[in-house]
Amino acid sequence: MSKFLDKRLQETDAYTPGEQPRDIQYIKLNTNESPYPPAPRVLKAVSAEDIANLRLYSDPTCKVLKEKLAGLYGVKPQNVFVSNGSDDILNFAFLAFGRENGAVFPDITYGFYSVFAQLHGVEYTEIPLKEDFTVDYKDYLGINKFIAIANPNAPTGLSLPLWQIEEIVKSNPENVVLIDEAYVDFGGESCYRLTEKYDNLLVVRTFSKSRCLAGGRLGYAFGCKELIEDIEKIKYSTNPYNINRLTLTLGEATVDNDSYYQQKCSEIIQTRKAVKESLENEGFTVLNSDTNFLFAKSDDISGETLYLELKKRGILVRHFGNERIKDFNRITIGTPQEMDCFIKAVKEILSGGKQ
Amino acid sequence: MSKFLDKRLQETDAYTPGEQPRDIQYIKLNTNESPYPPAPRVLKAVSAEDIANLRLYSDPTCKVLKEKLAGLYGVKPQNVFVSNGSDDILNFAFLAFGRENGAVFPDITYGFYSVFAQLHGVEYTEIPLKEDFTVDYKDYLGINKFIAIANPNAPTGLSLPLWQIEEIVKSNPENVVLIDEAYVDFGGESCYRLTEKYDNLLVVRTFSKSRCLAGGRLGYAFGCKELIEDIEKIKYSTNPYNINRLTLTLGEATVDNDSYYQQKCSEIIQTRKAVKESLENEGFTVLNSDTNFLFAKSDDISGETLYLELKKRGILVRHFGNERIKDFNRITIGTPQEMDCFIKAVKEILSGGKQ
Repeated sequence: MSKFLDKRLQETDAYTPGEQPRDIQYIKLNTNESPYPPAPRVLKAVSAEDIANLRLYSDPTCKVLKEKLAGLYGVKPQNVFVSNGSDDILNFAFLAFGRENGAVFPDITYGFYSVFAQLHGVEYTEIPLKEDFTVDYKDYLGINKFIAIANPNAPTGLSLPLWQIEEIVKSNPENVVLIDEAYVDFGGESCYRLTEKYDNLLVVRTFSKSRCLAGGRLGYAFGCKELIEDIEKIKYSTNPYNINRLTLTLGEATVDNDSYYQQKCSEIIQTRKAVKESLENEGFTVLNSDTNFLFAKSDDISGETLYLELKKRGILVRHFGNERIKDFNRITIGTPQEMDCFIKAVKEILSGGKQ
Repeated sequence: MSKFLDKRLQETDAYTPGEQPRDIQYIKLNTNESPYPPAPRVLKAVSAEDIANLRLYSDPTCKVLKEKLAGLYGVKPQNVFVSNGSDDILNFAFLAFGRENGAVFPDITYGFYSVFAQLHGVEYTEIPLKEDFTVDYKDYLGINKFIAIANPNAPTGLSLPLWQIEEIVKSNPENVVLIDEAYVDFGGESCYRLTEKYDNLLVVRTFSKSRCLAGGRLGYAFGCKELIEDIEKIKYSTNPYNINRLTLTLGEATVDNDSYYQQKCSEIIQTRKAVKESLENEGFTVLNSDTNFLFAKSDDISGETLYLELKKRGILVRHFGNERIKDFNRITIGTPQEMDCFIKAVKEILSGGKQ
């Protein structure tokens, strides 16, 4: 750190992404990526001409992609925002809507919310999840602050029903409620239709998980025209061309091939069900997941030990040091073959531990 | 705009990118893109495997690209920062270094500096260029604020010699001096080597102009280890994976093929020389340019009229409404063929105007 750095930023704790070691080829179950490649037609979407045209700036209005997303979801293009990954949108939202009244979010949730709040000088309160790790929607009623809720939540995988989200949105008409639906395609109930009814609801999504495009960087959001204009303004005040040309092309092709991704989500949900049962057979407590990961703990081995033992065997899962969840690991659902390896390794570790 | 938007952002004037009309196929001389495609080997750098691997996040450390840039410029990887376009880096720098003491920059320069300042609540002063549109380096000596200077400057195309930049950096040891070298490869004198000597110098560059990769979104910066750590911290506090996988691959290939880009810069400089002479033959005043554009005015036609008449003829240049420079247009250097069309159109407009 230099002596020049802004004081508030000196005190900000940056986000720590999941590790990406390069010493060996790991089975990566630690960053909630899809185990499947993009759709066959997406793999062929980038032409030689597209690469040559990289000399030109991308379309800052992202017109075609917005129209395609609007078509897929039955909304208007003016109700759609796209950006360089959903982190970008979350960042914009904290900056745009957080400072006046402060923010609230659960104590156990996506670790980036508190980072954005610190970065932008947003006062924030973390509301504890209930003992069973669910969000109590009543904690958020009439709270008069910017609210950020991941639904389904991470790293727990649990989700709130639509009617509870609506109660939260309805009871906070003077503040923006951000629902982060990064994982919604794996079983959650989306609230994006409510953006037609409430002017204070911003729904954030990503192509990183269910659309197999984490490395392409593409996030999107739904909201009323005015909310979308607000975050467009921040985009145009920071980096108007923030989505590159190839990602726009790939994103458009992704929307055109939606059925492939629906199919892959079904497969991941099936695999998740099987892995949950296997872990439960080994004595694990596994939270109900509406996501592409499981959050699980065992009374027979500490969360950290399991994480380290799996890593020794070439399997990466995500362990969080936070006191409330330190017994758990977050396990991304990979291919059935990868998950067989994972379960085999877990059994080996547990039996070794019991010897 | 919604009623929820933060007050400071309500008052921020967003940046206006150059127009991108789609009604006809224009000769685009308005956003300082390269008229040449990326190098042949860069065109082939993205493999089918790279596209399939888009399911995985990109490397947030950008290790390989940083090493290649460090190798090309003879610095250490720890002195290099890369991000999603140089706008991203400028944005981070205003946030990181501008708020404590305020900022200064020229009154006529890249229009985004004042936007970043407004966005982040940075008090700023615009120092008028001299009558001849040059930056007077003495205005910036011992000023004790965050300083941003585009060198060469845009839209004037004029540059400061290295020793004057060094005087500015040396005389402001308690504040960061940001030198925006977006156009330096077209004739300016780079100051990046001074980052080894001064801990308060941040030099920002882009792949958008001389590297023919505007649509790929890739910017980079040089600075002492601590300054680079500071802006890395902001990246990790907003969007750690902000460069997508394909852009990393293309950027690496670009660095590997540096001689192609040196050659293209030479060609653009040659074309610029010829266009300047042609415009001067038509009675234009043309500033000396160290960039891939010319800044020119004619006593025979207003800047706005020329811009509009060129647009009617399918040629886009950039006109700025700012009072001091409203007589001028900024003309990107295209291919020799494009510039022949441009000169022909200018002659036609001028002769029509005189009829």
